[in-house]
Amino acid sequence: MDPSVNKKIIDGNSIARSILQNLVQEIAKFKPLQPGLTFIRAGNDPPSVFYVNRKQKVAAEIGIRSAVHLFEEKVSERQLLQTIDKCNNDPSTNGILVQMPLPPHLNQQFILNSIHPHKDVDGFNAVNLGKLCKEDDSGFIPCTPAGIFELLKASNVKVEGAHIVILGRSLIVGKPLALLLCQNKPSANATVTLCHSKTHGLESILKSADIIVAAIGKALFLKGNMVKDNVVVIDVGITRVNDPAHPKGYSILGDVDFNQVIQHASKITPVPGGVGPMTITMLMKNTFQAFKNQLSLKS
Amino acid sequence: MDPSVNKKIIDGNSIARSILQNLVQEIAKFKPLQPGLTFIRAGNDPPSVFYVNRKQKVAAEIGIRSAVHLFEEKVSERQLLQTIDKCNNDPSTNGILVQMPLPPHLNQQFILNSIHPHKDVDGFNAVNLGKLCKEDDSGFIPCTPAGIFELLKASNVKVEGAHIVILGRSLIVGKPLALLLCQNKPSANATVTLCHSKTHGLESILKSADIIVAAIGKALFLKGNMVKDNVVVIDVGITRVNDPAHPKGYSILGDVDFNQVIQHASKITPVPGGVGPMTITMLMKNTFQAFKNQLSLKS
Repeated sequence: MDPSVNKKIIDGNSIARSILQNLVQEIAKFKPLQPGLTFIRAGNDPPSVFYVNRKQKVAAEIGIRSAVHLFEEKVSERQLLQTIDKCNNDPSTNGILVQMPLPPHLNQQFILNSIHPHKDVDGFNAVNLGKLCKEDDSGFIPCTPAGIFELLKASNVKVEGAHIVILGRSLIVGKPLALLLCQNKPSANATVTLCHSKTHGLESILKSADIIVAAIGKALFLKGNMVKDNVVVIDVGITRVNDPAHPKGYSILGDVDFNQVIQHASKITPVPGGVGPMTITMLMKNTFQAFKNQLSLKS
Repeated sequence: MDPSVNKKIIDGNSIARSILQNLVQEIAKFKPLQPGLTFIRAGNDPPSVFYVNRKQKVAAEIGIRSAVHLFEEKVSERQLLQTIDKCNNDPSTNGILVQMPLPPHLNQQFILNSIHPHKDVDGFNAVNLGKLCKEDDSGFIPCTPAGIFELLKASNVKVEGAHIVILGRSLIVGKPLALLLCQNKPSANATVTLCHSKTHGLESILKSADIIVAAIGKALFLKGNMVKDNVVVIDVGITRVNDPAHPKGYSILGDVDFNQVIQHASKITPVPGGVGPMTITMLMKNTFQAFKNQLSLKS
């Protein structure tokens, strides 16, 4: 690859690795104590199985204990709530993560709000989202937005004063990221426009963006002619498409037409290897933070 | 006044009055029960005294009981928290409002978060802000953003698909309003850009706006040459300036240079008489909602 192209790529794997290496050392200082993370998973949705396994693997590598409570697809809300309640009261569990999506008969928001805010390392409890809105740093920030923020920081992208266009207003990415980037802090202070399926005149909004974050789950949506020169592009999309040429039989595509957009961008994340590794890394960081917070409450 | 100009004005007093008239009737149906609203005020900041009096007056007019707990400027956090705790547990109080700003030695966010979310009719508890972010309608929406939303609705302004530029990222107006307007609902679905003191290129952002909400507290900031034709303008600013010609000795100015901007706007709110009366009205609506919610919990 042309070395000038190579320099444009924001290497999420490498940035994640350096944060994790730092975490290993920080966590080791507390030995024999260890942070504990509990996963709750219902059903056998293959991506959920995959993600929980991968998060457990990373946790083990950096010195975080983890456990999984597995339930059948048809689990009742009451059963899940009882388990969450037990974990809320179990001092050996510092963080609780209910793997999304839950089976459709369950009230997802009700379940997420039942996780104690102090153990809500995924950051989706209303209390933690409200704290993000209030710029109250005592809460947990959802992992993907937190990871994007770290990617920008590690890549020396100037966020302050930048016009950042976010594509997608999901609770997991778009909205909390907007709240994070517009905070009144020198590391944030961006002007954020949140776009979605009902946005009119998207072309001109995109052309005015200094930074674009694409999080709509539409493979290769963002084309080269839709961005201005020197834009920074963060691709959160993960769409799996059949690909007989690939050893796994499928490829993972982002929301960005990478080969086109890289011609115009000053920096860009690849898929895979961009935002993905950061999301897991931020989960580990939040879990370690929960562990430290709970230790200091005890003492 | 030229009648075509008159038709452009969004009359907040009249819209507020019609909502209040409806509330009077709804509240009367519950007689002899009455919603109860408790104010907590510390110190003698004249605007705070004025606002609490005015809110009490409107409450009395529509059949809401109210009470005030007054504290000296030097009140301790513990005293305030004890009073809030008492109100949280008092079944005759459906809504609690701590008048802002609090004296600077008090932790405002801690105090706001101590109000029970079910009684937080001002909507500033982290739980209620988080619910707004999650599009969970069981929470309370802060009164000024809720009032702006009602003004737009009552004036038949199309919000869906519109590009709305909000000036000011305060917790009281800008941020919750952004969350409200971008919700995935036919009455919302706007594309929101949140601007603030660190925004670059504000001129071109303002020129692209279909709707502008000015909430920065800078008198007459928005000029006629900064907006595009047919823009809708909502003015949240309230700046008091000395004015010997006025019987009160002062005038209230908005963030918008009304006489200039009305030449370009299709609709515009005046100051006073635009957003102001709606804020109090939404407080009454939230209090009545809290009353009904608490009744249904009892039965």
